[in-house]
Amino acid sequence: MLEIDTDRLLADLKTLAEFGRVGTGVHRRALTDIDLKARHWLCAQLREAGLEAHIDGVGSVFGRTPGCEQHILIGSHTDTVPNGGWLDGAMGVLYGLAVARAWMAAGRRGGTGIEVVSFNDEEGRFAGLLGSNVFTRRTDMEAARAYQAADGETLGEALAAAGLADTPVEYLDPRRHRACFEAHIEQGPVLESAGRRIGVVTSIVGVRRVAIRWQGQADHAGTMPMAMRRDAAAALYDFAGRFNAFCRNECSPQTVWNLGDAGISPGAYNVVASEATLLVEYRDSSTEVLDRIRAFIPEAAAEAAAASNTQFSLTPTMDTPPAPMDPTLMQYIEDAASTQGVTALHMPSGAGHDAMLVAPLVPTAMLFVPSIGGRSHDVVEDTSEADIALGAAVLGGAVARLLD
Amino acid sequence: MLEIDTDRLLADLKTLAEFGRVGTGVHRRALTDIDLKARHWLCAQLREAGLEAHIDGVGSVFGRTPGCEQHILIGSHTDTVPNGGWLDGAMGVLYGLAVARAWMAAGRRGGTGIEVVSFNDEEGRFAGLLGSNVFTRRTDMEAARAYQAADGETLGEALAAAGLADTPVEYLDPRRHRACFEAHIEQGPVLESAGRRIGVVTSIVGVRRVAIRWQGQADHAGTMPMAMRRDAAAALYDFAGRFNAFCRNECSPQTVWNLGDAGISPGAYNVVASEATLLVEYRDSSTEVLDRIRAFIPEAAAEAAAASNTQFSLTPTMDTPPAPMDPTLMQYIEDAASTQGVTALHMPSGAGHDAMLVAPLVPTAMLFVPSIGGRSHDVVEDTSEADIALGAAVLGGAVARLLD
Repeated sequence: MLEIDTDRLLADLKTLAEFGRVGTGVHRRALTDIDLKARHWLCAQLREAGLEAHIDGVGSVFGRTPGCEQHILIGSHTDTVPNGGWLDGAMGVLYGLAVARAWMAAGRRGGTGIEVVSFNDEEGRFAGLLGSNVFTRRTDMEAARAYQAADGETLGEALAAAGLADTPVEYLDPRRHRACFEAHIEQGPVLESAGRRIGVVTSIVGVRRVAIRWQGQADHAGTMPMAMRRDAAAALYDFAGRFNAFCRNECSPQTVWNLGDAGISPGAYNVVASEATLLVEYRDSSTEVLDRIRAFIPEAAAEAAAASNTQFSLTPTMDTPPAPMDPTLMQYIEDAASTQGVTALHMPSGAGHDAMLVAPLVPTAMLFVPSIGGRSHDVVEDTSEADIALGAAVLGGAVARLLD
Repeated sequence: MLEIDTDRLLADLKTLAEFGRVGTGVHRRALTDIDLKARHWLCAQLREAGLEAHIDGVGSVFGRTPGCEQHILIGSHTDTVPNGGWLDGAMGVLYGLAVARAWMAAGRRGGTGIEVVSFNDEEGRFAGLLGSNVFTRRTDMEAARAYQAADGETLGEALAAAGLADTPVEYLDPRRHRACFEAHIEQGPVLESAGRRIGVVTSIVGVRRVAIRWQGQADHAGTMPMAMRRDAAAALYDFAGRFNAFCRNECSPQTVWNLGDAGISPGAYNVVASEATLLVEYRDSSTEVLDRIRAFIPEAAAEAAAASNTQFSLTPTMDTPPAPMDPTLMQYIEDAASTQGVTALHMPSGAGHDAMLVAPLVPTAMLFVPSIGGRSHDVVEDTSEADIALGAAVLGGAVARLLD
């Protein structure tokens, strides 16, 4: 058993939320002064719990129970989006601290221990999922130093200012890292609307993005007959209709997609559009479904182009594969939830998380707690204290099952 | 007979095109220094032709054959869009000068004469169709002085700088103005693609504009299931499909429409749109067709809103009625074209012109000459010299028929 000290967890969460507090939310962008203060605070808590803790060369925080041959990674991220919520990734990190405290309190020594992690810059001040990308060797640390924030600061400058210029980075070691757990708020309305308190993630969905650009010819919208136009906006609307119908009718009930922006140029009542660009995103746990959608896009874009006498081009901008979670660890979460008297809901994660980069290398699982109103990435984000406590207890139970 | 001096007409057009010349085009915004120089040059030409000429209190140029009880108004505008074409409205004004010269050369005195007009600011530096709106008393001159150009100058300031602050404005007088002719380049590809050289305008189409705005809710495009979204962009695409199908299937072959801009907010791959605004414009010679489209819009917008669980609002921004041309004057143009050995093509004007404001008050007609490649409002705009000359001869013939 790993007995979670719920009161201490909630107190820690509230203390951490003071670093960059904005009303009910938090503004704590990676490697800003307030974020560094929060990282040092976290290191201090980890050490106080008896762990060996440090900030690594990319700004991620690691804290390990001492003297262990193997570790179970538990964590998430403590940076936030601008004016974000107080829980988001912070909750998963402090769950790790709570589990590590419970591990120490249980009098365990050696064998498989706990490694708490706060991956730096999950929210992309310099680059999204920065810490976990470096940790899993997907991003080269030297190249990453050139990454620039919107305010002009480079990652290299920010690390140097934080005294981390010469600090080595930590890498995932599949021999030592036996498993990985990330707990997170759901960031959607599924648990709440289903009346469920714990979600066990089946897969972090794959995400593909493509920008489609049609090029036609600007013309006077009064004097150019319809049949002679080369209307790029007409192509965009035509494609949007085809794409929405295809996804609605041909994909899975869990597929999600978004045509989140349309840019039309020159953009006036009385000018036929010479150029139209549509941003297309689609997500699914199934590579087969993603591939079917990908195959449909050039067909539909070409049909829309032919109907409007325009040309089109496709620019893929993201292709993140689905990351299935480990069935054994999922079962541990489900069993631990049962022990707490609740039935966990199996669900995909529609959002990306640090865990999706670890999952291909080490057995990985995620658990969700409900987001009130489905809200996140906003100061109104919240989860009831009872659900926060329940999530920690379930995580503790799952880790104990793995340890036994 | 009114014998047009074609060489002189072409020479005058080329001289006028030097005022504000930009390569093959002209940049001559209303009441700028170069535009005023062009207006004074025009006055000098009118006077040299024997007309009484002046610039009125809104900047329009008028030149009348002397001693006449009635006048036939002939003209258009000499201001241009930024980096516009050399002909556009200038051709119709210099046709008026050419016809007036022919009238004088024919030894006519008294009776019905010619009044050449260059309406100020048709292209809307201060307000589109400014001169013809003031001339037809649709725009109050005192209120118009407050109109402001994008560069900050008000019409009142520009007129004062031009020495026109205390000059009276000219008004249309249906007793004195017996008829009105405006010749113009087509600004579209219809004549050229039909292999025709003269267009006789049946009607200047009515134009209606409405902005439709859908309001939904911004959400994470990964975590919010499709069925729970309130996606304003989805409503916009849905409406666009319905509207294009309706206009294609239910309107006249000459109806034109344009969904020329779509604004989506916040506008990102991974954010469900909270707000989407579509600009809708449609044009037709028939009020019945325009009314049918207008009735369809709120129905389709509401269906799109219901399907996406969004709210919508409509903001009408323009309702210009169709301006049918005078059948007798149209017949004169047709007959005059026949005399020149060409068959005039009956066609609506999809673009607005000064003539549409005069038409409800005085018998009015327009003739078009072909635009090479259908291009206009650009420095590449052009018409062959043979077509320019033919248009002037046809106009001269039509005016002669009216005079006889």
